[in-house]
Amino acid sequence: MTSNTSVRLARRPIGMPVADDFRIDIADVPVPGPGQVLVRVTLISLDPAMRGWLDDRPSYLPPIGLDEVIRAGGVGEVVASNESRFPIGCLVQGNTGVQEYAVLDASSLTRVDPTLGTPSMYLGVLGMTGMTAYFGLFEHGRPRAGDTVLVSAAAGAVGSIVGQLAHINGCRVVGVAGGADKCAYATDTLGFDAAVDYKGDTVRTAIHDACPDGIDLYFDNVGGAVLNAALTNLSMHARIVICGAISQYNAEQATPGPSNYMALLVRRATMTGFLVFDHAAEFRTARRRLARWVADGRITAPETLVPGSVTDFHSVFLRLFTGDNVGKLILDISA
Amino acid sequence: MTSNTSVRLARRPIGMPVADDFRIDIADVPVPGPGQVLVRVTLISLDPAMRGWLDDRPSYLPPIGLDEVIRAGGVGEVVASNESRFPIGCLVQGNTGVQEYAVLDASSLTRVDPTLGTPSMYLGVLGMTGMTAYFGLFEHGRPRAGDTVLVSAAAGAVGSIVGQLAHINGCRVVGVAGGADKCAYATDTLGFDAAVDYKGDTVRTAIHDACPDGIDLYFDNVGGAVLNAALTNLSMHARIVICGAISQYNAEQATPGPSNYMALLVRRATMTGFLVFDHAAEFRTARRRLARWVADGRITAPETLVPGSVTDFHSVFLRLFTGDNVGKLILDISA
Repeated sequence: MTSNTSVRLARRPIGMPVADDFRIDIADVPVPGPGQVLVRVTLISLDPAMRGWLDDRPSYLPPIGLDEVIRAGGVGEVVASNESRFPIGCLVQGNTGVQEYAVLDASSLTRVDPTLGTPSMYLGVLGMTGMTAYFGLFEHGRPRAGDTVLVSAAAGAVGSIVGQLAHINGCRVVGVAGGADKCAYATDTLGFDAAVDYKGDTVRTAIHDACPDGIDLYFDNVGGAVLNAALTNLSMHARIVICGAISQYNAEQATPGPSNYMALLVRRATMTGFLVFDHAAEFRTARRRLARWVADGRITAPETLVPGSVTDFHSVFLRLFTGDNVGKLILDISA
Repeated sequence: MTSNTSVRLARRPIGMPVADDFRIDIADVPVPGPGQVLVRVTLISLDPAMRGWLDDRPSYLPPIGLDEVIRAGGVGEVVASNESRFPIGCLVQGNTGVQEYAVLDASSLTRVDPTLGTPSMYLGVLGMTGMTAYFGLFEHGRPRAGDTVLVSAAAGAVGSIVGQLAHINGCRVVGVAGGADKCAYATDTLGFDAAVDYKGDTVRTAIHDACPDGIDLYFDNVGGAVLNAALTNLSMHARIVICGAISQYNAEQATPGPSNYMALLVRRATMTGFLVFDHAAEFRTARRRLARWVADGRITAPETLVPGSVTDFHSVFLRLFTGDNVGKLILDISA
């Protein structure tokens, strides 16, 4: 451990990020202060929300500053420690950023418990991805057994978990995904009851056909045309949970909003936004439940691990937007 | 009583309705059947929602059919009765339509109680207008004392009541209205704490300045640019109640939705639609409370009564959209 390679924000992307929006920095490995540990990062989480942090816009977290390390969740091994709860050699999950070594406050870390799952699961089904699915669905979507639940980005990290949780909750689950392969994956591997290909040009009709009794709960990860189509197919007292809007994140102009929003009035429906961080006090309970369902085989937690180094960040990150990954996308720099 | 003049839908309006979209019909006065009464209509309610019923679009009520009488709430006097609860001479409120005489099922009628208010109040603060304000605000907006409540169409029928109810509830109330006169009316006569003129070209900034702690509850009657501006000024866990979208009702093309809807996520906020009819079981309680607040002087219930005949319907109806009425707009055909 002689140097720390990190990826930093060189300039703010316009539209889809390009390589020159980032720069590679090589510096000394930092030294932990009191209450801190030094983590050698092994796995880096790639999330659609990271695109928003690159813009200079007020949001739920401050924008990543120019020249700052790209903010990201990660898993790694403690290699120096000033905190007895996290001895050298233990595995932790935290906000490591896109870099090889991170100094982190011990109070911000979660210890990886190998009896619950693998390290990569701590970025996926047992990490923020799983927490987002769990609290977004159960807390904000309030599913009832028998409900028809529509989930977009159904083969994605969050959507794949949401659909399976809704199934456990006794719901009929319909996924929306891009292309026949992902639709087949949702029904055949994840057990969704039906799947709709949003790349077809009749997404509104296809959703209608797949949800003949209307949508009781729509868990939206994509925004745009799919959200607008879902609005026309709501059942009475439907709930829409806004988790993300990946179809809009690289838009260069202000994008149109859901023009069918008056369906909320006609259907006495609700559209709610949420952030997973607000539920931190209950993460531990949720993690244990999710781990049990994974162990029982009731949840399949797909992940796409891409081996490489931090310098591969840009090309791997783009896979979120070109749609060629299934499940949780992780850059694996452990080698 | 020799004939019944009614206004019927001649063709579906495109954009702002024109006179030729309606036709005047003169027919015999109808005869009530069992359980029905004949009402001589004296007051006809004019509501923005009526514009939606003229379109051939599925909604919470079926569209008005071609050649059918224009659907409208009204007040009138029972002039023939097959139902002992509604003797000849009593005043009732119901779905009379835009016509001089209406045969109505007694079960659909509300008797006007003069100890609670005037007949016109049964179309305004004690009628569907007041019910919409009461249930939209209290049931769906869930105001807490200390909240900042923003209300659009603040000088309109519903908005004027919503703002005053929010005041009674201990909230700080900011209105949005069109022009300096209506803004002054909101603050000086209705007691709003502040008012914003949406015709100014800085509505977003003006709302921000008038709500320095953010909007806790936005009661939206207008949609469009004001809704989008409100979304950028939400406080944490804010609630948006969708009551109407009058700025959009005469649009000839599909109008853009609220492009800032992702603020719901950033602010962990909720946007809810509702319909007043769902609360019918509680109308009686609400009406008595509203009547008491009016009697106590805590609610001013503005109304604009336009004397005329049913043939004046089209020109009076348009005043809803040109913005030159204050409070409840009523066509008074009693003379």
